[in-house]
Amino acid sequence: MTAEQVDAPRARPGGRSARVRAAVHRAVIELLAEGHDGALSVPVVATRAGVHATTVYRRWPTLAELLADVASSRFSGDIVVPDSGDLHDDLERWVTDVATDLADPDVLALTRAAIGAAGPEGGDACVADRHLQLTAMLTREAERGGTVPTTEQAADALLGPLYYRAVFIGRPGDTGWARGLVSRLLAD
Amino acid sequence: MTAEQVDAPRARPGGRSARVRAAVHRAVIELLAEGHDGALSVPVVATRAGVHATTVYRRWPTLAELLADVASSRFSGDIVVPDSGDLHDDLERWVTDVATDLADPDVLALTRAAIGAAGPEGGDACVADRHLQLTAMLTREAERGGTVPTTEQAADALLGPLYYRAVFIGRPGDTGWARGLVSRLLAD
Repeated sequence: MTAEQVDAPRARPGGRSARVRAAVHRAVIELLAEGHDGALSVPVVATRAGVHATTVYRRWPTLAELLADVASSRFSGDIVVPDSGDLHDDLERWVTDVATDLADPDVLALTRAAIGAAGPEGGDACVADRHLQLTAMLTREAERGGTVPTTEQAADALLGPLYYRAVFIGRPGDTGWARGLVSRLLAD
Repeated sequence: MTAEQVDAPRARPGGRSARVRAAVHRAVIELLAEGHDGALSVPVVATRAGVHATTVYRRWPTLAELLADVASSRFSGDIVVPDSGDLHDDLERWVTDVATDLADPDVLALTRAAIGAAGPEGGDACVADRHLQLTAMLTREAERGGTVPTTEQAADALLGPLYYRAVFIGRPGDTGWARGLVSRLLAD
């Protein structure tokens, strides 16, 4: 996509704005997938997206804000919250999906870049939706009368090891191992 | 320290090399503490360290290698491995020290920067020594005849939540919470 295609005036400004956002997000993901994380900058992203750097800066004043926005967008609504009527089954399906996601090199590259450039906001952008999903599953079980851990306890026991292995060990856990985390959490 | 002080020829080349390394490491830690993580580059580090950029590049060809080296150096041998004769007590003291370390903003900044710029090597540089310390405590207990989890299980249960909270939630766990992780691990 060229600067002309994206920046040309259109009848619907909302449509142009959405196109710019999509092009910039796609550029970030492509560049990270190609291993440009160390050299990522707003001008480099703008060139790849085919827009002017000022267009990017107007919307995302810093690379950190841009990366947090891309991570938040990528990691929200990407995993369906299971609702089988059984918390153990739901959590098993869910951790399997999270483990599979974290085994994707592009996901890892975006996660690492968001943490590196955007600090606490970058981490939050990666996992805020995961915490909402956990809360949804735990709340449903509590409403069915079950005894449930808190979201924090579940996050410590499930997301802690999942993200630690992926980000620090560079060897994401497999799905059998991830299901074992659920059994240990619910056995407490 | 100026370029003259660091780069001037000295009688002991080994001494100069060690001084350059110390100056460059200190520059990285200072710049990260000041919030320059997004703008960190080899030339910026060299200027702060008072050495020529080529001196830095000769030793650390990329910023990623430099950050991994600084992290590895900072996070190795910084925590004493307790040896009280009791695994539960040892692990409690150890996780307390790790939790305290992770509550230090400078430690978090270096950890995030190493992950962001240096990928899997950056994560490994942050935690490799922690895994060796865990193995040392678990091995001693096994030699005393105790039943012990594997290092991987202990890392999942202790380091997973500790690093997840610090890096992703931006709210490191307190020491009481960290000791609870030990009780849960050893109760299994």
